[in-house]
Amino acid sequence: MNFFDSLSFFTHIHLLATTNESEAETGSLILAGVLLSLVIIYFASKLGEEICSRINLPPVLGQLVGGVIVGVSALGLLIFPEGGCTADDSLIIQFLQGTAGLTPEASTGVFAAQSEVISLLSELGVIILLFEIGLESDLKELIRVGPQAAIVAVVGVVAPFVSGTAGLVYLFNVPVVPAIFAGAALTATSIGITAKVLAELGQLSSKEGQIIIGAAVLDDVLGIIVLAVVASLVKTGEIQISNVIYLILSAGAFLIGVIVIGRFISPYFVGLVNEMKTRGQVLLTALIFAFALSYIATAIHLEAILGAFAAGLVLAETEKRKELEEQVIPLADFLVPVFFVCVGAKTDVSVLNPTVPTNREGLIIATFLIVVAILGKVITGFTVFGQSELNKIAIGVGMIPRGEVGLVFAGVGSASGALSEATEAAIIMMVIVTTFVAPPLLRLVFKETETTLQPITESLKKDS
Amino acid sequence: MNFFDSLSFFTHIHLLATTNESEAETGSLILAGVLLSLVIIYFASKLGEEICSRINLPPVLGQLVGGVIVGVSALGLLIFPEGGCTADDSLIIQFLQGTAGLTPEASTGVFAAQSEVISLLSELGVIILLFEIGLESDLKELIRVGPQAAIVAVVGVVAPFVSGTAGLVYLFNVPVVPAIFAGAALTATSIGITAKVLAELGQLSSKEGQIIIGAAVLDDVLGIIVLAVVASLVKTGEIQISNVIYLILSAGAFLIGVIVIGRFISPYFVGLVNEMKTRGQVLLTALIFAFALSYIATAIHLEAILGAFAAGLVLAETEKRKELEEQVIPLADFLVPVFFVCVGAKTDVSVLNPTVPTNREGLIIATFLIVVAILGKVITGFTVFGQSELNKIAIGVGMIPRGEVGLVFAGVGSASGALSEATEAAIIMMVIVTTFVAPPLLRLVFKETETTLQPITESLKKDS
Repeated sequence: MNFFDSLSFFTHIHLLATTNESEAETGSLILAGVLLSLVIIYFASKLGEEICSRINLPPVLGQLVGGVIVGVSALGLLIFPEGGCTADDSLIIQFLQGTAGLTPEASTGVFAAQSEVISLLSELGVIILLFEIGLESDLKELIRVGPQAAIVAVVGVVAPFVSGTAGLVYLFNVPVVPAIFAGAALTATSIGITAKVLAELGQLSSKEGQIIIGAAVLDDVLGIIVLAVVASLVKTGEIQISNVIYLILSAGAFLIGVIVIGRFISPYFVGLVNEMKTRGQVLLTALIFAFALSYIATAIHLEAILGAFAAGLVLAETEKRKELEEQVIPLADFLVPVFFVCVGAKTDVSVLNPTVPTNREGLIIATFLIVVAILGKVITGFTVFGQSELNKIAIGVGMIPRGEVGLVFAGVGSASGALSEATEAAIIMMVIVTTFVAPPLLRLVFKETETTLQPITESLKKDS
Repeated sequence: MNFFDSLSFFTHIHLLATTNESEAETGSLILAGVLLSLVIIYFASKLGEEICSRINLPPVLGQLVGGVIVGVSALGLLIFPEGGCTADDSLIIQFLQGTAGLTPEASTGVFAAQSEVISLLSELGVIILLFEIGLESDLKELIRVGPQAAIVAVVGVVAPFVSGTAGLVYLFNVPVVPAIFAGAALTATSIGITAKVLAELGQLSSKEGQIIIGAAVLDDVLGIIVLAVVASLVKTGEIQISNVIYLILSAGAFLIGVIVIGRFISPYFVGLVNEMKTRGQVLLTALIFAFALSYIATAIHLEAILGAFAAGLVLAETEKRKELEEQVIPLADFLVPVFFVCVGAKTDVSVLNPTVPTNREGLIIATFLIVVAILGKVITGFTVFGQSELNKIAIGVGMIPRGEVGLVFAGVGSASGALSEATEAAIIMMVIVTTFVAPPLLRLVFKETETTLQPITESLKKDS
């Protein structure tokens, strides 16, 4: 028995003596809620993955769809306060009330704390995912494809932004400010979903894979800058150049600094780990490095995942790479499904319902945004120069998923009062469609090359 | 970029346009606080472990001491609201204010949420630890040593309780009710610390190890019952027999039910896992099982760790045991240090300071309690009948650590007004000493047998 479980002791006391130790009792119920949430997440994740892998779709799509089914759109098992849900909407809370003696008064607190913990686990999940992607990436290859990745990233930001904004203004008579918001929402690629699909296809270390990852990382930085610019524009009517320069410089200094300093200190990492005698020395020393960089990235107003990715890149250059990769896998299996299922669970797909009349204006704008979103990224592959053997369409398709960055733009725009409801709904639809359409598309375009390159006999064997 | 990091986007907006998106900004700072806490936890854990392993002490002691150093007793880096600390006391919060733009107004919320998440991770840590212990245990051996373990458990509860209570009443003139509380605090063994040391010594699957684990698990159940009885006695002046019977029956039904049903369904577990095609199928299917049982244990007012242990026991009987063990190790390396470092961090060792006059009465009572706590458990080994080859002293020593269950008794007693300050401080001291003394003692008594059994030449070689 131990200190933390000790809280559950209070529950037993309550049972016998109805002492009002409500705070401590709540602690035990939060744990119960988290355990139940994890059971639901893993169940939805594995069921979705297994079904998708059997019908030849990427497993990560199954995790997303599994999340949608248990989430706010359907079953209401896994919901979060940010979406405007309350404890009364949560089936988990109702289940705790029915089975574990949760009182209605304590429900709000338990719901908030449980949601906080699950959200944090999902954030740790995407940090571990990007750390793993960094570990599996090849720094030299990334530097070699750097120029191509930079072009892909810049074109992939400029093209959808300009055509999206212009189209909304001239074709749909949307005012300039909301049009700029919607255009900005078209810019940033969701690196997590693309990287997961690439890993599933075994294409992460291919040249195409490395260009996509490199471009997506740069996109991440560009996305931060675009959002800063747009938000500043809406708020003050002008762009604060000094802050934009600060963001660009800090992002550049961070990534270059980590790689340069990292290569310098990585021999000491290996030496230190070899000296250590206790269990988990490789994994924990690596995690100290990764989490510290993630923290620094957050502190200088970049994103935690950039730090984790950079840490993975640096450690991939050491002789401990293989050992570390093996140890990170179970950790990623534990945390990453929480991320993808939560992404699905937080997505409200009801805006896609065409039978609701108020959705229709949004659906028309959404159709336009989706076309721009897909085309604006697909063309980026063809900007890669002098590499005729590359699967250029695959690069473009890899940049399609907008994850939920677009949702942030929608949320910020909505909060600032700039976006109409229809435009906001259209942005959300664009995000849903690009996120869910990219994994199977990516699989398709990589499969095609594979088949073309395979000897005919093998290809026939496969088809039979 | 992704949804959860998306929160940090709001930070950037704030930076540029000072939008008051304080709620979303807080989300990013909570992540930063959790990352920083994990860096501190892993650093303290590895440093403590490495130092201890070099001076021939159990690594887990290093984790506990590392926790004390970063915790409320010394550096104040890792502190928790339950101990009466506020955000202003937390160096992590001050660091976030200095480096990541945390505002003083938002500090309380960030501190509470970050503490909640770290506490939950530490609870998941001990759940995974007990799952791992279950996996490494041998159900048949446990059943075989069941009668001995039961005797050890019962004697180990009755002996310290009776002698502790009687001693306080007759030797120290403590009133009956607080004496009963202090006596009850002497009963329950901390399974986590003992099991970790046994695993470190490679003694988990020895006969002694299995008796200790079996007795500690039973002790856990007995501890719940003792606390329920004592609390009820203090509150209402009588014992509610019906609830005691309920606890005994539900605990028995749960443990036996899980093992019987588990053995029946474990072939289906293997069959299901073999059918699955996606990554992490063994680990996640096992975790669904373990977390579901942990939930059920919590819901029926037992402890989550009992469910996790039972799940480990059941899965240890399947052919997936080895694969599962390998995959659980990195997960345990990630979560278990959080548990042990937090145990240390939450322990306030200032009550041990004899230069503070008010501590002295407590110190005298504490000395008595510590003697009873150690002797009352050490004798239990000698109650094991007809097993002359057993290391009986090791069994008794294995039952010594009280973890912080005692702290719960102290807390409950204090809240009910029954305990004097001196008695409460004495209980806390008893817990600290037994927790920190048991790991090196356990190592010593197991080492002695080893040396006795070794051929003299090898023993000489070792000494030289």
